[in-house]
Amino acid sequence: MATSESSIPETMRKKVETYIFALQDEIVSAFEKIDPNAPPFKRDSWVRAHGSGGKGMSCVFSAPSPDPTSSPSAQEPNTVLEKAGVNISVVHGMLPPPAIKQMRADHSSIPYDGTSSLPFFAAGISLVVHPRNPNAPTVHANYRYFEITEPVTEGSVDPGKVVAWWFGGGSDLTPSYLYEEDAIHFHSTIKNACNQHGSELYPTFKKWCDEYFHIPHRGETRGIGGLFFDDLSSEKHTRLSDDVPRPKSAEDIFAFIQTLGNSFIPAYLPILERRMSTPTNHHQRRWQLLRRGRYVEFNLVYDRGTKFGLQTPSARIESILMSLPETARWEYMSDMGSDEASEEGKLLEVLKKPKEWV
Amino acid sequence: MATSESSIPETMRKKVETYIFALQDEIVSAFEKIDPNAPPFKRDSWVRAHGSGGKGMSCVFSAPSPDPTSSPSAQEPNTVLEKAGVNISVVHGMLPPPAIKQMRADHSSIPYDGTSSLPFFAAGISLVVHPRNPNAPTVHANYRYFEITEPVTEGSVDPGKVVAWWFGGGSDLTPSYLYEEDAIHFHSTIKNACNQHGSELYPTFKKWCDEYFHIPHRGETRGIGGLFFDDLSSEKHTRLSDDVPRPKSAEDIFAFIQTLGNSFIPAYLPILERRMSTPTNHHQRRWQLLRRGRYVEFNLVYDRGTKFGLQTPSARIESILMSLPETARWEYMSDMGSDEASEEGKLLEVLKKPKEWV
Repeated sequence: MATSESSIPETMRKKVETYIFALQDEIVSAFEKIDPNAPPFKRDSWVRAHGSGGKGMSCVFSAPSPDPTSSPSAQEPNTVLEKAGVNISVVHGMLPPPAIKQMRADHSSIPYDGTSSLPFFAAGISLVVHPRNPNAPTVHANYRYFEITEPVTEGSVDPGKVVAWWFGGGSDLTPSYLYEEDAIHFHSTIKNACNQHGSELYPTFKKWCDEYFHIPHRGETRGIGGLFFDDLSSEKHTRLSDDVPRPKSAEDIFAFIQTLGNSFIPAYLPILERRMSTPTNHHQRRWQLLRRGRYVEFNLVYDRGTKFGLQTPSARIESILMSLPETARWEYMSDMGSDEASEEGKLLEVLKKPKEWV
Repeated sequence: MATSESSIPETMRKKVETYIFALQDEIVSAFEKIDPNAPPFKRDSWVRAHGSGGKGMSCVFSAPSPDPTSSPSAQEPNTVLEKAGVNISVVHGMLPPPAIKQMRADHSSIPYDGTSSLPFFAAGISLVVHPRNPNAPTVHANYRYFEITEPVTEGSVDPGKVVAWWFGGGSDLTPSYLYEEDAIHFHSTIKNACNQHGSELYPTFKKWCDEYFHIPHRGETRGIGGLFFDDLSSEKHTRLSDDVPRPKSAEDIFAFIQTLGNSFIPAYLPILERRMSTPTNHHQRRWQLLRRGRYVEFNLVYDRGTKFGLQTPSARIESILMSLPETARWEYMSDMGSDEASEEGKLLEVLKKPKEWV
């Protein structure tokens, strides 16, 4: 178990761990507060002893629909959320040579001899929230810290010397119906958060987000974007010039991560609150489920984290696939969205051609 | 357009094309006959001119649910099928060197110089039928013919000399609830079809099917199996010893394919007919939708045809994703199926450990 870290109170490992657990609690409480009659999130702590070590906590919301045969009026529960997960994981283990080789592209400080494995540590928070109302957007956020260390002797309590570390993360919005004021609110909130740490961060990570959450076979982005970034450390960064001011020390990047993490609630909750009770109909629900089908397509076919997770033999599948919506729908040659002037068509337009919102 | 083939009436290309169009018509008619009040399949011919050439016909069934707000009693249409597609495609184009290199593993006759592309031709029928009743299983079948030829001069009407050809295909059943008699009926029908062409075909292709339709991250097969095979030609086959009697000439393999194709209706329709009106409830529907989630996971993450299709720039996405169910569901740590003695648990048992049905 990861007891070794706790003996070194001021390591970045520990700081990140403490921060993400607090953020998880804050976010889950915020969602519970806006819907006090809904069942609480299910809090589910886990410990992984198999192979490598780790621990985590899943906080998951679900409200399975009641049996419509027993009560004809009760078709759908009327909770604000339909399915949501806010997960923490703090894991460590050994990286095999092929994984090291790949990571060296962005982190030249990692020693690589083609045969040795290296210890890694990863801590992160990952969340996906699918509200029930088709007018309220799905949201995703993820913040993570990764460390690679020198090998240590069996039984040593201290981790080896850190040879590489970086932060990654982001947050993005996936509406079924486009409300421009929501898109603008979400993007301005995260832009303001970024700007406290450097003016190039928002434009660079906004663009990266549009590129990352792209579904090539549909020619659409998954949603209306937000931020996406990886490999943020003191080393050279492929997308950020060394000339522009940006957080470079571990402390400064961690401060940036905290500003972003803390901006999640102000960026998303006001949107959820103003859309969660919008009158809706079967047509809108159908479109929402079709859009959730696209969400499934992106996550299962393209998302790097999901693909990596599914290929990891001892991975916790339930945590990896927590991001999938409760229900998704596929229609052959659906007519929905084909009329450019319709509300569905207006969404598709911005998914086919990402827009600058702020 | 692919007019060049029609000028050579007796080529295998033409024979396969004629056969699969007739089979498609026969299968679609059979489904329409058992549910005369349902809307007919939508027949949708297409021609691809962009890049390479091709044509096809999609026959698709859907019955979108009516608006429940307008008629409280009409929650779900009461059609036998929920979503179904029976597709034909007859395409030709150029195979790039990496694809040729991969195909040479099983077809050493293909010339490969690392830089040239080679013309290919592919004709196939592919079908997926998702019935509405949770007691009626989903079925999939696919039969295809592939040919690689020598390059021809621009504008030539005849295709070049065939340098490699092969058949592939199979059919498999995916129930949400296990009825042993259905599994036995399906497997005996296809085993009898196989046995007319060689006694090793069923055991070899049954095993291959269990291996292929495996979802590693779930430790489950997609369904209760059937047949899967590929690369069947006069060349050596990696899974069939040269000592055992098996169809080897193009004519004999085509005869085998026809026996299998013709066995689809007798293998599946009696099962559908005896399960399509079984009384059902919300609990069963929920389980069926969870199982459809697994179907989506397999098809998007592992199915070679789907993955290949999604990566092909000019591919017809609607045809490729036709196999997806109308609705699928994901629950975090679902309790359904965890009780081994339940009907859901009994299905999981045979998915975790494939069984010999006949």
